[in-house]
Amino acid sequence: MSKKFVERITGMEEDFAQWYTDVVTKAELVDYSSVRGSMIIRPYGYALWENIKNELDRRIKETGHENVYMPLFIPESLLQKEKDHIAGFAPEVAWVTHGGAEKLAERLVVRPTSEVLFAEHYKNIIHSYRDLPKLYNQWSNVVRWEKTTRPFLRTLEFLWQEGHTCHETDEQAQEETVKMLDEYAEICEKFLAIPVVKGQKTEKEKFAGAKHTYTIESLMHDGKALQSATSHHLGDGFAKAFGIQFLDRDGKQQHVQQTSWGFTTRIIGAMIMVHGDDRGLVVPPRVAPTQIMIVPIAQHKEGVLDFVYEMKERLSDKFRVGIDASDKKPGWKFNEYEMKGIPLRLEAGPRDIEQNQVVLVRRDTGEKLSVSMEGLDETISSVLEEIQENLYEKARKHREEKTSVALTFAEFKEQLENKAGFIKAMWCGDQRCEDKIKEETSATSRCMPFEQEKLGDKCVCCGKEAKHMVYWAKAY
Amino acid sequence: MSKKFVERITGMEEDFAQWYTDVVTKAELVDYSSVRGSMIIRPYGYALWENIKNELDRRIKETGHENVYMPLFIPESLLQKEKDHIAGFAPEVAWVTHGGAEKLAERLVVRPTSEVLFAEHYKNIIHSYRDLPKLYNQWSNVVRWEKTTRPFLRTLEFLWQEGHTCHETDEQAQEETVKMLDEYAEICEKFLAIPVVKGQKTEKEKFAGAKHTYTIESLMHDGKALQSATSHHLGDGFAKAFGIQFLDRDGKQQHVQQTSWGFTTRIIGAMIMVHGDDRGLVVPPRVAPTQIMIVPIAQHKEGVLDFVYEMKERLSDKFRVGIDASDKKPGWKFNEYEMKGIPLRLEAGPRDIEQNQVVLVRRDTGEKLSVSMEGLDETISSVLEEIQENLYEKARKHREEKTSVALTFAEFKEQLENKAGFIKAMWCGDQRCEDKIKEETSATSRCMPFEQEKLGDKCVCCGKEAKHMVYWAKAY
Repeated sequence: MSKKFVERITGMEEDFAQWYTDVVTKAELVDYSSVRGSMIIRPYGYALWENIKNELDRRIKETGHENVYMPLFIPESLLQKEKDHIAGFAPEVAWVTHGGAEKLAERLVVRPTSEVLFAEHYKNIIHSYRDLPKLYNQWSNVVRWEKTTRPFLRTLEFLWQEGHTCHETDEQAQEETVKMLDEYAEICEKFLAIPVVKGQKTEKEKFAGAKHTYTIESLMHDGKALQSATSHHLGDGFAKAFGIQFLDRDGKQQHVQQTSWGFTTRIIGAMIMVHGDDRGLVVPPRVAPTQIMIVPIAQHKEGVLDFVYEMKERLSDKFRVGIDASDKKPGWKFNEYEMKGIPLRLEAGPRDIEQNQVVLVRRDTGEKLSVSMEGLDETISSVLEEIQENLYEKARKHREEKTSVALTFAEFKEQLENKAGFIKAMWCGDQRCEDKIKEETSATSRCMPFEQEKLGDKCVCCGKEAKHMVYWAKAY
Repeated sequence: MSKKFVERITGMEEDFAQWYTDVVTKAELVDYSSVRGSMIIRPYGYALWENIKNELDRRIKETGHENVYMPLFIPESLLQKEKDHIAGFAPEVAWVTHGGAEKLAERLVVRPTSEVLFAEHYKNIIHSYRDLPKLYNQWSNVVRWEKTTRPFLRTLEFLWQEGHTCHETDEQAQEETVKMLDEYAEICEKFLAIPVVKGQKTEKEKFAGAKHTYTIESLMHDGKALQSATSHHLGDGFAKAFGIQFLDRDGKQQHVQQTSWGFTTRIIGAMIMVHGDDRGLVVPPRVAPTQIMIVPIAQHKEGVLDFVYEMKERLSDKFRVGIDASDKKPGWKFNEYEMKGIPLRLEAGPRDIEQNQVVLVRRDTGEKLSVSMEGLDETISSVLEEIQENLYEKARKHREEKTSVALTFAEFKEQLENKAGFIKAMWCGDQRCEDKIKEETSATSRCMPFEQEKLGDKCVCCGKEAKHMVYWAKAY
């Protein structure tokens, strides 16, 4: 062929980073702009985000949370009230110093996260245990001044939701923190077909200002880990810094116990790197903006277009269906919609119509099935379900294959070198070992999983008594 | 009573501005924060915005538009490419000058609107007439450095959608501009029960960088006008500044014709000031987060709570229903939900239950109706419909009463003084008259309505030949 049907993308095994860049641009998820480190989210990318957002928003509301909206700007003095928080975020915020032609008396930060804004508001509106719990969430954009950026994975600005809640007791805050982590895990596993490990971050890796941070970690195709969402038990640190007090059931003034938790556009990057292949994107059916793309064959022949449009009409009651009846060649279309990762292609030409059948082509396996028009809805439902399950299962197997156990530091290094993936190893709890592991291997502690295993009783680094089993990996 | 059931709000006729502030805070729509000119949108306020957003998003998608997301920041050099645009916006933008500890080589503007970002992207992705039209929209926050601010009406940051489209011809762009203005008018009239006047802005009042600006103008309770949404035909100004060209059907390079149009959180302010009264907010049923509030009477009596919860369950299939079975007094509850403007209150006590009836209380008229449990759904449906229509009709009548005709400048001043509202008057088309009218009366030209009337043939200001009939008013 003089020109390939679609422009070639770099092979995954050849150069995974370049493959990723090729996929996000050629599948038309994003475009670059002259704004350093920011991305334009194109219609297909944004439709993915809308589907994720709708599903998560539903879960957030069903668990009793209410949406609110806080200001974009934070006065410097407000951000400084909680010492750990400002220390963690100051190096990576954007500063507004002028409004119009006028220099501001106080600089403003473009919010990197909104704990302090919520804290200030909570102080105003919480007075008694009757006002608790307060379960708020906001959908917004935030900015972190990152040096190196990549679409979805790490951008100057990203979109997210941030939940912020206040509770009477430490136990209730703890329960909320884990409950929302579970919601995140479910949306990853059930909706995006991304298997995750749930666990707690070490002190070193926890959120600036939190008491405990919990995380879900997933493994990308190249064996690197991606922190996919976090949920923080904030304790009463912000409450004390901001004076958020309530009259408790015994008539005593107490500080509230808080949580915060966030889920971002980053997850689209995870979806790409977990499911994608050398033909491009692979989108799980539940999140797919288009689940089925109909491509008519020999569409100039009598009856073909009528047939496929009627079919589209009928299937649209139940599925998200597209059709491409443009004058481009079928081969071009096949490649295009494979690049975009549309779960199922449906082909119909004169011979199919004659035999009262259509051809289904699965994006995940490439499998072709001739199926009868009788009961087509049911067939498609179950094939989409199979694709969803297969993607999850494939990702889970891949993670298992790339997860190993290291009992010694030598094993640790060797496995990281040879296998690239999660390494499960015991740890003494001392940050010096964490630092040393990072320095010598560039792997970081991803989490202390909820499901602890006892792999011996010695720290993989120093050999002293081990306290936790930790997942380690190189990470995005 | 020792303490009024709800804290008193200022009377509308006494001090309308204070009434407004009282309503937005006491109905818990917003809270203030330490961020000057920004508001916290509380759950009830945000639920209103979500309903408006869902309705508008549906209309935007049904008319063939796709959602995208552009960066928050605009490099100074990008904003400067279109001369009228930068001249209009430069005085009112927020400038980011530092990222972390580092001073930026080029300052960034926090987007006040996104024409230039879309223009840069369109240049990348449009090459041929086959790529047209491009019909994009984004939901986002924008910042304008306003001196005096009021919740919803004028805030440093506000939420909105901004549509940005590209077309082959001037006619197509014109058609799109008016089509989207019509969508805005419909959502105001049908959904928010706010009557609007549709028309064109004068040259002086048009958007910085537009060829024509169209607007919908509504009249508030106090007789001041509010620009409720605008739609701009941008012509090829941005296309030329950014080089957005396409190969047309005759194989020639041409510049695209563009439009942009926006609808903001400001509309919530309009809803408050059009429908509200001395008891607080009045929310039209279609946009109301809670359409019906159930208040049990003598709820300690046997059977009452069972009865009302069962009723809530049943009504929730069809309506958005709340219930307040707290231990507060019914009188407190009545006042609270009147303050929040909930369209319909439903009371049920032992006597009602015995007689198989409930009491409906309309928020708009205060009318009480004892209605049978038989066919309750249908009764409520039609009462809600009546409330929606009544609110629109009341607002329309109020506008008619406050709209007058002026043939001379003396009449103009007198009517503005005595009636406060829209003044319809002829205008010569010269900006000097527009300036003079503003200077001497503080009324501005709101629009040249699509429905022109011939009120004589002389300009109300200079007496020269008139070109347009114009709506004038003092405005928010």
